[in-house]
Amino acid sequence: MDIIKPSTIAGVMELLPDNQAVFDRMKNTIEDTFKDYGFLAIDTPVIEKNEILFAKGGGETEKQIFEIASDSKDMSLRFDLTVPLARYVSEHLSDLNFPFKRYQIGKVYRGERNQKGRYKEFYQADIDIIGNNSLSIYNDALLARVIFEAFTRINFPNITFHINNRKLLNGFFNSIDIEDSTEVLRTIDKKDKIGLDKTRDLLIDLIGEKKADKTLEFINSSEDNEKVLENLAAFAGNDLYLEGLEELKTVYEYMVKFGVADKNIKIDLAITRGLDYYTSTVYETFIDGYESIGSVCSGGRYENLASNFTKQNLPGVGMSIGLTRLFYQLQELGLVEEEKSSKIDLLILPMDKEFNFYAIDVLYKLKDLGKKADIYLETGKFKKKINFADKINAKYAVIIGEEEASKNEVSIKNMETGEQFNKSLENLDF
Amino acid sequence: MDIIKPSTIAGVMELLPDNQAVFDRMKNTIEDTFKDYGFLAIDTPVIEKNEILFAKGGGETEKQIFEIASDSKDMSLRFDLTVPLARYVSEHLSDLNFPFKRYQIGKVYRGERNQKGRYKEFYQADIDIIGNNSLSIYNDALLARVIFEAFTRINFPNITFHINNRKLLNGFFNSIDIEDSTEVLRTIDKKDKIGLDKTRDLLIDLIGEKKADKTLEFINSSEDNEKVLENLAAFAGNDLYLEGLEELKTVYEYMVKFGVADKNIKIDLAITRGLDYYTSTVYETFIDGYESIGSVCSGGRYENLASNFTKQNLPGVGMSIGLTRLFYQLQELGLVEEEKSSKIDLLILPMDKEFNFYAIDVLYKLKDLGKKADIYLETGKFKKKINFADKINAKYAVIIGEEEASKNEVSIKNMETGEQFNKSLENLDF
Repeated sequence: MDIIKPSTIAGVMELLPDNQAVFDRMKNTIEDTFKDYGFLAIDTPVIEKNEILFAKGGGETEKQIFEIASDSKDMSLRFDLTVPLARYVSEHLSDLNFPFKRYQIGKVYRGERNQKGRYKEFYQADIDIIGNNSLSIYNDALLARVIFEAFTRINFPNITFHINNRKLLNGFFNSIDIEDSTEVLRTIDKKDKIGLDKTRDLLIDLIGEKKADKTLEFINSSEDNEKVLENLAAFAGNDLYLEGLEELKTVYEYMVKFGVADKNIKIDLAITRGLDYYTSTVYETFIDGYESIGSVCSGGRYENLASNFTKQNLPGVGMSIGLTRLFYQLQELGLVEEEKSSKIDLLILPMDKEFNFYAIDVLYKLKDLGKKADIYLETGKFKKKINFADKINAKYAVIIGEEEASKNEVSIKNMETGEQFNKSLENLDF
Repeated sequence: MDIIKPSTIAGVMELLPDNQAVFDRMKNTIEDTFKDYGFLAIDTPVIEKNEILFAKGGGETEKQIFEIASDSKDMSLRFDLTVPLARYVSEHLSDLNFPFKRYQIGKVYRGERNQKGRYKEFYQADIDIIGNNSLSIYNDALLARVIFEAFTRINFPNITFHINNRKLLNGFFNSIDIEDSTEVLRTIDKKDKIGLDKTRDLLIDLIGEKKADKTLEFINSSEDNEKVLENLAAFAGNDLYLEGLEELKTVYEYMVKFGVADKNIKIDLAITRGLDYYTSTVYETFIDGYESIGSVCSGGRYENLASNFTKQNLPGVGMSIGLTRLFYQLQELGLVEEEKSSKIDLLILPMDKEFNFYAIDVLYKLKDLGKKADIYLETGKFKKKINFADKINAKYAVIIGEEEASKNEVSIKNMETGEQFNKSLENLDF
């Protein structure tokens, strides 16, 4: 028979069991944190109708959608978890309690070009809080606290939330007579990539030197948070500006009250996050000392989640962790703790099949004692068996041969120290 | 803006949060059981290369594969978890420990026609044990025990494993001079659907009346297991037959030893499970009293997992639960326990935003006490707030108004009994 070389498609992350265990622990810890704050799980299909996925239309993402080549050609793989959320909430409006706090951790699909660290299939971990007609601004701070706790629990307590407010930004632009701020925002968003000089040049082309410098001065918030807020209050902005400032101040103060320390927050007026979706708070999150890997959790507040699917006004706030990319980057940096995939502490090794039944008795006695025990039932020499116990990282090998079985005992070998001792079947605990 | 009616594609299961919680608990309980027996998680991509998925070729499944309509048209969605397992094990042969015990719980995709209870996207929960060159027959019994424990833990302890052995069947057919048993096996497999008379008619067409009746007599194992084994031992079969009988007997005896009671096992010679994949043990599993919903967990032993991808001989044994279909059927039968999606026991209700900071202090004091507490930060009247606590099924509402805040107290309302009592901030435990 012809052998086909076994391989995955390019641009997916597939892990060996030990790494899978690390990834799963990270994923489960994040999930547990979400649950502890009352977020509810939803699990939407990976395949959605094209009319849902393409409802918003336009943009880079659309080009990356994987369509299904079925007869009808009317469905594709989801490219994020936000569009499915919008569809889900609109579809089940009357069955949900608002504010609806949901989380979803699932795979999404994008036809990215093959490139290191770019994935065609990757996990996103999303939390959103959706209101029906209204949603208090305090949720924006709560969300940051939840993310802060999630990162702390996966051993990254040193992260910094960069927060900003789109109303404040737009209010500022209105105040200095910039009518269409779209391109300006896009340019600012690139500042960290292209550098300050290039940003200034581009801004001068767009709005002239005077406004460019005003803008750059405005977004340069290198001082401490309280001082930045003071400076912002000193600027004579319009109503939108003042509304944004009040929101930003409230989010900052509530974040601190929710236990995100001031040192973990940076009011950063250069954070803009995309262009038309977010309408108020925006966040990006960086791991301290590893800012170069980019934001590990981003999001913001939107005025209306699902205007394509319902006339009901659904304001919300959400954050998203790109789990696959995060895991890849932490691995590259050597920041992922190693873990053994097997959770078995004691591996029972009958030396011959005639002791199998006795060994099964031992297995269930150990399990009844709450031990994590398993049994090895293959034929082979002692060395092969003990090697297997070693490979799966068992703490103890429970050896059962002629002598042990005849005395109703087992011989327990500590795999780390080599120490060996006997226990009777009636008293297996140690 | 035009409103697009929000809906999923047909043939997917999407649950509201309460049902999602029930489904997730079932899924997690099954997963925990697998882990307790040393099975390791793997997570393969949903998209595989066509050359992998189509490697075996032919069959009904191939027609149901969802291909991706990308430029290259060379990838599709997985239709089961077995082909990806074969690819994974062959690809990572030198990095795995054998016997390799893996589980995978994931979504698979089939272009099923729209029909109630048929799914285009559904969860499978698979466990397999893969040997490198050899794998002891005892694993076949262990696997049944693991499945038995999983079903017991999700509150279905009354299930019956129907077990058979393909060597025994083929040995029998050889012995009565049926050379090609493919069609005979296919006919027997349909017996429960088409009835005994129709089966006999079909068998007579295939192999004549005498052999048809011999076959029907052989597969009619209505007696108790010990008696069936006795009868089988009395038949003068060839070597293959005797090998199969010995295996079947061993699997049965070890299943009992592993704690699957005799009443939960039926040696059933009419169980054939597909045609070319399985080579020894085959199983189907039925919920007692609900046999009509069909087998809820099936599988068997195969001689070689991955002959398309490696020259290494990889014998294995596996079982698979079709989780989505199982959940649907249990729901239809009213056998799924209801559950509230929210895990929050205490919901804190500040009566006005001026008490928010105090309420956040209360939240973290309660969390420090190990309580499952959350906070409600929307504006509104008392009734709206207490209604929300009721809707998410909180056991207690923790009410904070003017009086409570001024005294450094909270008022705790038992949502079931209506009983209300005060606690001080210093001593919140109750």
